Amino acid sequence: MYELDADSRIERTGEGAYRATLTDRWNIGPFPNGGYLAFVAVRALHEVLPHPDPLTVTTHYLRPPVPGEVELAVEPVRVGRGTSTGAVSMRQNGEEVLRTTGILTDLGGLDGETLVDAQPPAMPPPEACEGRSGTERGLPTFVERFDTRFAPGTASWLSGERSGRAEIGGWARFADGRPVDTDSLVLMADAYPPPIFNAVAAGWVPTLELTVHVRRRPADGPLRCWFRTRFLIGGYLEEDGEIWDVQDRLVAQSRQLARLQRPR
Amino acid sequence: MYELDADSRIERTGEGAYRATLTDRWNIGPFPNGGYLAFVAVRALHEVLPHPDPLTVTTHYLRPPVPGEVELAVEPVRVGRGTSTGAVSMRQNGEEVLRTTGILTDLGGLDGETLVDAQPPAMPPPEACEGRSGTERGLPTFVERFDTRFAPGTASWLSGERSGRAEIGGWARFADGRPVDTDSLVLMADAYPPPIFNAVAAGWVPTLELTVHVRRRPADGPLRCWFRTRFLIGGYLEEDGEIWDVQDRLVAQSRQLARLQRPR
Repeated sequence: MYELDADSRIERTGEGAYRATLTDRWNIGPFPNGGYLAFVAVRALHEVLPHPDPLTVTTHYLRPPVPGEVELAVEPVRVGRGTSTGAVSMRQNGEEVLRTTGILTDLGGLDGETLVDAQPPAMPPPEACEGRSGTERGLPTFVERFDTRFAPGTASWLSGERSGRAEIGGWARFADGRPVDTDSLVLMADAYPPPIFNAVAAGWVPTLELTVHVRRRPADGPLRCWFRTRFLIGGYLEEDGEIWDVQDRLVAQSRQLARLQRPR
Repeated sequence: MYELDADSRIERTGEGAYRATLTDRWNIGPFPNGGYLAFVAVRALHEVLPHPDPLTVTTHYLRPPVPGEVELAVEPVRVGRGTSTGAVSMRQNGEEVLRTTGILTDLGGLDGETLVDAQPPAMPPPEACEGRSGTERGLPTFVERFDTRFAPGTASWLSGERSGRAEIGGWARFADGRPVDTDSLVLMADAYPPPIFNAVAAGWVPTLELTVHVRRRPADGPLRCWFRTRFLIGGYLEEDGEIWDVQDRLVAQSRQLARLQRPR
């Protein structure tokens, strides 16, 4: 069993009530990554909704949970023919830590029109992009879950410099070989470091709200990811993401609202 | 009292229970516009949360309501010092029609860093942009609520042509002179026709999910709005919006996921 699947098992404990155990393998500092938490919420949605793929998933982060047990209250809000909508509330030690609302559909059965006015982000092949290694000091355990390559010019902050452009991107896949599916695109949308690291001195950048639109089932292979911040205003910032598969097809778009905390 | 305020009055009916009456002034066809519904939900959030401005508001549309009475269940999810989070469920005739989750803050009191890597959308002054008029056949009542001007080249669908670019933008303000505040930016983010009208033959384009990030309090005056669709995939599309005030400052960003229905 792949790491992500082992670390997101959902156990039914009652009517609409489930339990999961967050592991520390997806931590950044002491806290599990927000994309991992959203992935756990999506797995919970599958317990009560019939459609196989997330179409849009919005998570509001209320308090950071720590690794350990969480309770999930899962509600099928509306089940329709083409889509179904559900809500998840995750609690730890009695306190609500996040709330997710999501719409599922069958992305394998879309028969509507397609018209794309965009190109995948330009970058050299994975082997020509910078990776991260265990020699980096204080590497979060989260980083070890992925084989992440950075497109040239987007990883300047890793060497203590800043390009001034709040963009970051590159190729990503799971380190243990887990194929990327539509559920895990919700995690991939939060798997890169904040692009604002390339523009200003930043400490923690906690997410307040993350919305991921999953648009296609990804082909097997590494994903091309691109994240950008254009507006840091009064300490709040958006991060816009695009994820493309190896067949040059957009598979997900994301936007999150986060808050910049200054380095201590 | 301005139209929008008269048409969104919230009456308390019990613990966390409120009532509102949707009017037909904000209709597109038989149904109230989704931005208007989200605005009503934001007004309901203010009943239970202390912060004055919406920061991020996500609405999932479950069924289209019709003008008339709706019940609102309003929940303060988490009240913190800098932000507060709440949820609204709107029902009509016993059926849930939408669910909104929002985070409020005080946008007048932001003291964090600002860094903007973007320019307002280029367009001539309002008097040099095309407007709409009552001579257009079948004009929705919604359109009469606004003084909407279209930037050159973005209103080709109005004359039955299509530019092929799924972009639409221009200047907008309320027709009755209501100043735009942070609450009503949530409505403004859904006030333009779908940009996809300029690219493909479309009928109804119902919104499944709309997220608006409100980033600043707007200065008084007309707003510059720009909406764009880059990915129509299998009948689903995103609409990305930016709203700028007359002082060239971004005041809101929006993204919605919608479904293209072919013309009948």
